[in-house]
Amino acid sequence: MELSFGQYEIIYNAFSFGVAAFFAATLFFWLGLSQVSHKYKTALVITGLVTFIAGYHYLRIFSSFSEAYTAVNGVVTSTGVAFNVAYRYVDWLLTVPLLLIELILVMSLTRSETVRKSVTLGGAAALMVVLGYPGEVSGGIDSTRLMWGALSMIPFIYIVVTLFSGLSASIAKQPEDVRGLISAARWVVIVSWSFYPVVYFAPFIMSLEGGTATTVIELGYTIADIVAKAVFGVMIFMIAVRKSEAERA
Amino acid sequence: MELSFGQYEIIYNAFSFGVAAFFAATLFFWLGLSQVSHKYKTALVITGLVTFIAGYHYLRIFSSFSEAYTAVNGVVTSTGVAFNVAYRYVDWLLTVPLLLIELILVMSLTRSETVRKSVTLGGAAALMVVLGYPGEVSGGIDSTRLMWGALSMIPFIYIVVTLFSGLSASIAKQPEDVRGLISAARWVVIVSWSFYPVVYFAPFIMSLEGGTATTVIELGYTIADIVAKAVFGVMIFMIAVRKSEAERA
Repeated sequence: MELSFGQYEIIYNAFSFGVAAFFAATLFFWLGLSQVSHKYKTALVITGLVTFIAGYHYLRIFSSFSEAYTAVNGVVTSTGVAFNVAYRYVDWLLTVPLLLIELILVMSLTRSETVRKSVTLGGAAALMVVLGYPGEVSGGIDSTRLMWGALSMIPFIYIVVTLFSGLSASIAKQPEDVRGLISAARWVVIVSWSFYPVVYFAPFIMSLEGGTATTVIELGYTIADIVAKAVFGVMIFMIAVRKSEAERA
Repeated sequence: MELSFGQYEIIYNAFSFGVAAFFAATLFFWLGLSQVSHKYKTALVITGLVTFIAGYHYLRIFSSFSEAYTAVNGVVTSTGVAFNVAYRYVDWLLTVPLLLIELILVMSLTRSETVRKSVTLGGAAALMVVLGYPGEVSGGIDSTRLMWGALSMIPFIYIVVTLFSGLSASIAKQPEDVRGLISAARWVVIVSWSFYPVVYFAPFIMSLEGGTATTVIELGYTIADIVAKAVFGVMIFMIAVRKSEAERA
């Protein structure tokens, strides 16, 4: 696949941006542990784990990309070494279920409900990632990508519906101070996650090919990852801090 | 582009100086966390994040520069590998909004005012960085650099005006002990930030070209970064320590 120098630069710097953003976010969440009460520490630890795992994978993606292409005298050449697409999927397999568990943990549901929702939503998230993978590696605009993408949408829709209808009653029971914030966090999940299928199907929707398709996919996933993990994490942090303050008062 | 051996040495050592200064500053801020009260911990965590992100990018800039040039037997040769200018912009995109948030956080405004000012000033800062980038990569003394630079000055001026007029009332309400320090920190922002457009437009102002222009730009940005992030951070640290002491008394 051919990449222009401009496309190479965009992808290269998006990956480096991901590394910096995720490790910085991780330190932010973990250094803030002393600011939240006992009850919310696990939520904050997991929030930092999600960005830590993402930071590790962005380092790997960055190295893999650097090995797959060289840019000398403004000319980008493919070295023949494969660019490992699977890093993203390994990352999501670990982080996406954890992301949902973060949100469940700051809602302080009953213990049995926390476990039940973590298992069903986390399991659905893992299934969604596993089903998307065969389509991603199929390599282009074809019926394989379409079929696995469509299968992957089933658990995706189940998660969105559960976040909306299943958690609405619990949100109504939250303290007034954080109700808006929890509802906003739920929206960030839905909006940022909706971005993934759009990027996944972008080659179809926009009839993109080659370097342009790769640039759109890599930049799109990077932005979606940062919103879904780091920005969402900051909201979880704010919810945990406010609830801790309310409990101390 | 040609670099003399002296120019190569100056740039190379400026980048290494940046790495050392930023990681040292990061450790200073985070090791000081136990010295400030609850209220100022987030400000100090973010102060350290800014220098951590900068340290990461100076490591990357240093590596990129080392790959782009070799100095053998006193002769500097360009290897053809591109020197990635974008690292600075990726860094600023993350750190500049955070720098303003540091200052807002130590002022202990009301919660809604903190969120509002963080969003407007942080957003303006991000816009300023994004608008400057196309001019920087345009590659020299031309109208493209001038136009994007000029556009980038609009949010820059908005930030300076807000820091002066918008925050004056809040500064008057600060405890007497820190009022001078907060006002000084605001001045450090304005003076160190003014350095960036000067460096940006230096090729025009001084009609510099080639290696001399690159040396002035790289050394200038490095000094400005250290003042705006590490020196400014030390002031934020002092404000947080003094306010914590006053509250304990």
